[in-house]
Amino acid sequence: MENFVFHNPTKLVFGKDTVEKIGEELRKNGIKKVLMIYGGGSIKKNGVYEKVVRSLHDNGITKVELSGIRPNPVLSKVHEAIAVAKKEQVEAILAVGGGSVVDSGKAIAAGYYYEGDIWDAFIGKYAVKKALPLYVVLTMSATGTEMNGNGVITNEETLEKLGFGSKYVYPVVSIVDPTVQYSLPRDQVVYGAIDAISHVMEHYFDVAGSALIDSIDEGIIRTIMSATEKVIEEPENYEARANLCLATTLALNGLTKMGTTGGDWSSHDLQHPLSALKPEVAHGAGLAVVFPAWMTYVKDLISEKLIKFGKNILNLGDDATAERTIDELRRWYKSVGAPITLKELGFTQEDVQKVTQIASKHAPLGKVKRLDTHDIENIYRIAYKF
Amino acid sequence: MENFVFHNPTKLVFGKDTVEKIGEELRKNGIKKVLMIYGGGSIKKNGVYEKVVRSLHDNGITKVELSGIRPNPVLSKVHEAIAVAKKEQVEAILAVGGGSVVDSGKAIAAGYYYEGDIWDAFIGKYAVKKALPLYVVLTMSATGTEMNGNGVITNEETLEKLGFGSKYVYPVVSIVDPTVQYSLPRDQVVYGAIDAISHVMEHYFDVAGSALIDSIDEGIIRTIMSATEKVIEEPENYEARANLCLATTLALNGLTKMGTTGGDWSSHDLQHPLSALKPEVAHGAGLAVVFPAWMTYVKDLISEKLIKFGKNILNLGDDATAERTIDELRRWYKSVGAPITLKELGFTQEDVQKVTQIASKHAPLGKVKRLDTHDIENIYRIAYKF
Repeated sequence: MENFVFHNPTKLVFGKDTVEKIGEELRKNGIKKVLMIYGGGSIKKNGVYEKVVRSLHDNGITKVELSGIRPNPVLSKVHEAIAVAKKEQVEAILAVGGGSVVDSGKAIAAGYYYEGDIWDAFIGKYAVKKALPLYVVLTMSATGTEMNGNGVITNEETLEKLGFGSKYVYPVVSIVDPTVQYSLPRDQVVYGAIDAISHVMEHYFDVAGSALIDSIDEGIIRTIMSATEKVIEEPENYEARANLCLATTLALNGLTKMGTTGGDWSSHDLQHPLSALKPEVAHGAGLAVVFPAWMTYVKDLISEKLIKFGKNILNLGDDATAERTIDELRRWYKSVGAPITLKELGFTQEDVQKVTQIASKHAPLGKVKRLDTHDIENIYRIAYKF
Repeated sequence: MENFVFHNPTKLVFGKDTVEKIGEELRKNGIKKVLMIYGGGSIKKNGVYEKVVRSLHDNGITKVELSGIRPNPVLSKVHEAIAVAKKEQVEAILAVGGGSVVDSGKAIAAGYYYEGDIWDAFIGKYAVKKALPLYVVLTMSATGTEMNGNGVITNEETLEKLGFGSKYVYPVVSIVDPTVQYSLPRDQVVYGAIDAISHVMEHYFDVAGSALIDSIDEGIIRTIMSATEKVIEEPENYEARANLCLATTLALNGLTKMGTTGGDWSSHDLQHPLSALKPEVAHGAGLAVVFPAWMTYVKDLISEKLIKFGKNILNLGDDATAERTIDELRRWYKSVGAPITLKELGFTQEDVQKVTQIASKHAPLGKVKRLDTHDIENIYRIAYKF
């Protein structure tokens, strides 16, 4: 077990009919005016918008609205929001939506107090020193951003998709009401689940770890798998939905990171170029393809862990081998409707060259094996023809 | 799954050679003078005292010392410390020790800003509104107090042992260095482990819960059991010691409480009278006796959960029954040297009457079954003659 520091100050308010509590949480902290950001308007269809607006009103909180934050959120929108926040002198950011909205909220919160371009925080030129308080009403569980200090934004000018992290952008309060997710499309649920499983796996297959956190990781992944199956069958099954939501939060709130070196993260690094080349590729869909390909490529280095994964998560018993574990994980991804080859995602052999080039910019990737261009190409080739 | 709020602002600094970081943590938060409290002097034997004092000195932090906090910490000592803290105008409490020292620190921190007797917070007459910041260097993992907002103190005048909780007394920083626990006596390790297992079980056997947290609970208990066995054999096995330490922290930091009604807690309520009547009975020793007795008494109400416990924690497979699970848990307690009957703890039939009287003062106890005097006596009788 590696030494670690865990410090997660976010207040998580979880459960049925909790959206309505947002106004009270803001009021209790003395906030009177917020910039409320959201996406394409699904919150107006599922009733969340109305609940939030009423709760703000009932608690005497003024809002300025900014909508139109899209999946794979962009820097220009962040800039626009920062300008509005400054002009209107809001006291907090209220992000109502999924990971894209929350991540944008983090960049806006940090950008509010920075005189330069907040993109500097993403390229390592600025260490965030202050941020507006961020409040979250989560409408889609997947990325875990509701309970951590990280955000990912795409710079449309440079075509870079980068992340930043700061202790100042942990949400002050995050409200997770599983019932508002009943109406999510099946694909989004599945890809969100695979994203969360991948977050746990990046830590599970770290070069360091502990029996304790391994066992917690295994419980989280098992729960995500069984809850996802149930939610596909019964979208309004509260227990399954709540288990899935909470598991995705715990997957990336620092718990699974305890005692590791911080995770391997090469599969995430290999996924980003897929979505960069083909923006229609959902993050979770790309991960369903590249994570097993990475496992296959490095399997001799993680064979013990793969066998443990097969036994403790996939119920393979004494039949568990590294290969069977990977096969069974892919079989499960397929069973819930995820793609399992690059071909299925519409990639050609030429595309493999292109994503290799993009991914190689930041090589070497990962820790279990430091992946150079050659390794990266090999993994994409496995993912292509699996 | 029940609705819940999770909000744990404690910064956990975990790992080898972390004791030395205490001065820096205080300095970074602008603290210049602390009241340093500790117990009977074991920290002077194991080197912790010296490391803390040097770290304070190197970071320009002045200290006032108050030692002599004993197991089952008493209110008079808390009063004495509050007087010193006020007179010396310290800016923080630094608790260096185990659960008793940390719990005392919480009462002192809260008492500093209260004009009345801080005992009022324990008897429900005062809701804490402010507290001095509390910093912790933990030297014995057991109660989980290093990462929660609760403390237990004994009032020697009224002979009451009561707890209080407040969001203001979560430690700001808790340092857990597993290596400083290498020298702990075996009994303390075992009873600490049983205390932590019991904390998880109070939530596991709650009337509500979730598949997710159940699986995390199971992982925590399995890890505590295997790590305890290993630590008994090899007190300086870092991995085992670190797993045990972290598991005891996670057992009661709010994670296992998520989605429950807050835990049943009747076994804890039944243990306290044992230590009240015979102060030589360690908390963990008492729990090893009464928890299985409680399980036996209510087994028809929790049989499914007991079977799940037997399968997923005790590896009983398809042979798991409620009875076998209880037997196997008791067998394990015995195997690590814990008592498993009240007789072994030196209790007579008359004592059973006495503790029944004491426990009944706060009846009904628990949630799975609301225990009245008759139930309480029955459980103690089971624990007596098991």
